[in-house]
Amino acid sequence: MEYQSFLADRTRLMQTNAIREILKVVSKPGIISLAGGIPSPQSFPMDLFKVLVEKVMTKYQSRAFQYDLTEGFVPLREQVSILLSRRGIIASPEEVNITSGSQGLLDAMGKLLINKGDKIAMESPTYLGAISAFNPYEPEYVAMETDDLGLIPESLDETLAKYSIKLIYLVPTFQNPTGRTLPLERREKIAAIIQKHNALLVEDDPYSSLRYQGEPVPAIKTLAPENVIYLSTLSKVFAPGLRIGFYAAPAFLRQWLVLVKQGVDLHTSTFNQALAAEYLEGQYLDTHLPKIIDLYRPRQKAMQVALEKMMPQGYVCTPSQGGMFLWVTGPEGLDDLALYEKAVENGVAFVPGRFFYTDPLQGKGTMRLNYTMADEATIETGVEKLARAAGQLTG
Amino acid sequence: MEYQSFLADRTRLMQTNAIREILKVVSKPGIISLAGGIPSPQSFPMDLFKVLVEKVMTKYQSRAFQYDLTEGFVPLREQVSILLSRRGIIASPEEVNITSGSQGLLDAMGKLLINKGDKIAMESPTYLGAISAFNPYEPEYVAMETDDLGLIPESLDETLAKYSIKLIYLVPTFQNPTGRTLPLERREKIAAIIQKHNALLVEDDPYSSLRYQGEPVPAIKTLAPENVIYLSTLSKVFAPGLRIGFYAAPAFLRQWLVLVKQGVDLHTSTFNQALAAEYLEGQYLDTHLPKIIDLYRPRQKAMQVALEKMMPQGYVCTPSQGGMFLWVTGPEGLDDLALYEKAVENGVAFVPGRFFYTDPLQGKGTMRLNYTMADEATIETGVEKLARAAGQLTG
Repeated sequence: MEYQSFLADRTRLMQTNAIREILKVVSKPGIISLAGGIPSPQSFPMDLFKVLVEKVMTKYQSRAFQYDLTEGFVPLREQVSILLSRRGIIASPEEVNITSGSQGLLDAMGKLLINKGDKIAMESPTYLGAISAFNPYEPEYVAMETDDLGLIPESLDETLAKYSIKLIYLVPTFQNPTGRTLPLERREKIAAIIQKHNALLVEDDPYSSLRYQGEPVPAIKTLAPENVIYLSTLSKVFAPGLRIGFYAAPAFLRQWLVLVKQGVDLHTSTFNQALAAEYLEGQYLDTHLPKIIDLYRPRQKAMQVALEKMMPQGYVCTPSQGGMFLWVTGPEGLDDLALYEKAVENGVAFVPGRFFYTDPLQGKGTMRLNYTMADEATIETGVEKLARAAGQLTG
Repeated sequence: MEYQSFLADRTRLMQTNAIREILKVVSKPGIISLAGGIPSPQSFPMDLFKVLVEKVMTKYQSRAFQYDLTEGFVPLREQVSILLSRRGIIASPEEVNITSGSQGLLDAMGKLLINKGDKIAMESPTYLGAISAFNPYEPEYVAMETDDLGLIPESLDETLAKYSIKLIYLVPTFQNPTGRTLPLERREKIAAIIQKHNALLVEDDPYSSLRYQGEPVPAIKTLAPENVIYLSTLSKVFAPGLRIGFYAAPAFLRQWLVLVKQGVDLHTSTFNQALAAEYLEGQYLDTHLPKIIDLYRPRQKAMQVALEKMMPQGYVCTPSQGGMFLWVTGPEGLDDLALYEKAVENGVAFVPGRFFYTDPLQGKGTMRLNYTMADEATIETGVEKLARAAGQLTG
């Protein structure tokens, strides 16, 4: 039987992830992978899960295994409301909804807002998962300019003046792939710009808890609450496999987003939401998060030091105070794919930076390095191999 | 700020579920609800969950909490492959994928196949969750004729001859809302018809394990494997709150469906999939399923007997051997909404049948009654109240 002719037009934009193909070598033995994008299993509160299960079974009994509200499990929404208030975001439990990972809200935003050809404004480079969520709705992307401090506000202002933009998507803190963070001054400008243009912004914030240096910066949501859908997750501070995301959005959008989610998965796992509720209510995050930071901080430091010390001239690492990634820009004319091949020959893998750009002409001299999955010694060896590869390429 | 103008055109078809509004009275004290559509919490294996958690923690450790494959957790896919083989469906673990409830596959099928205006052929009445999954992709529905044995094959043949149909959607066994089951003879005809027309069928099978009388009937998938996407779930025989669905589909479609799912939720909860894998691998389903059947069988029987005995002349219950629902058709001219109001006055609720039809002119003298949530005595009292309401309406 022939199936191709059954496919909807929107599948044209849904191609197999090129990164996946390229990264297949990563699992080969002997390769140090700095290519990953996932938390260390050492960061999971393994000793806690049985305690949490016990609490959930006692407290919620069969309710933890039953169908539940599309909006989210009420005790979790209460806890997330408290968590958000600590981030300066005022949202009652009724104003907080749960999704199946952050991805769930990104898909729902695309479904709710995007007609074919509608424009989404993105940082450049940007998070790939957002592209794979939005692509099926056939948007066009407008790439905005960035520097080491993230999105340049003037570029946003120009973009909103020039185009009709349905949605702006940003990861303002410890961005994936660059690790960089928008300073407060730019956030204030961005808040004023989106208010001026009556624009909608998805502020995706998976990483802000993973701060290893410096002081927290307020979410853009706190500066322009009516224009921002604030999205976060427990995947980086509890367990990604439980697929718990959450968001705070203006009431009109929230009601629609719930309706969208109802058609997609009815609701997020009740049991996992109950575990997350107990994790937060028991204040385990407060004791566990410092352990995660103690695990990652020296890894980030080791990578920053090794890059600084070992990489040939012309390779520059973007400053970063947290998250999971460092971003390296190579010398003029560097081909990130050529370096990738040479690096794999030397026994180390990373993600070539071009894949994080919506414009196929950009990002060819860049790379994303992950430091959460390897220990300090492995990171040093990995960077050493990368430096050797870079030397071979130019030499 | 004004948000309405941001909405995509597809939202026009995504209206708040009218049923939800109507059923708000159900939660009022003193009302017996036969309106639900969920399993009894008494059907959950509550004594097992701790054992399963223990096994998962020991066997998979941190892996149970990490990101995992979009295709599904490999040990669960192995177990589902075995489960399917018992249903006569041959699918290797690689040929089985996991979704976040059945709903996840329905949404993915819509996204993969449906352009605006494409036609989906449905039984009439049909499952509402499928409509809420498909609607955002702006299909048109073609309603096919049914009788007490389900879809009339000739109606399918005519539909496929007359229209270009992208997808056929059926619940062949213990259908929601009617409880009826397609006999083998019709399944064979349907298999031949979809093969003749090179048509694609989603065979949604959440209920076939819940058989209280009679002999199992083979899935249509076994008769036309290349034309059928077979979809099932653990929601009715393990725990709905864990959101575990699974499907077997031709390879070409499966690869696309995985790509679709990646953009929607990355993957289904690893922990929940691991629990389900242990549930199946430990053969707990074999010992637990008879308990669920022992719980529901007398409830179905009690409702059938009460309807037969108490309802006024002209009310007929469709024969059913399993599942969660009975379907009642009232006398000529009955208004299901008027009866609903009268029933609520008498202290009992059901779902008016018109909501299960895509054609707004159909189903006005019908009703869906659920028997999984109430015990036999409550069911009898509920039907008594319903009969009184019916008498008042005609009297």
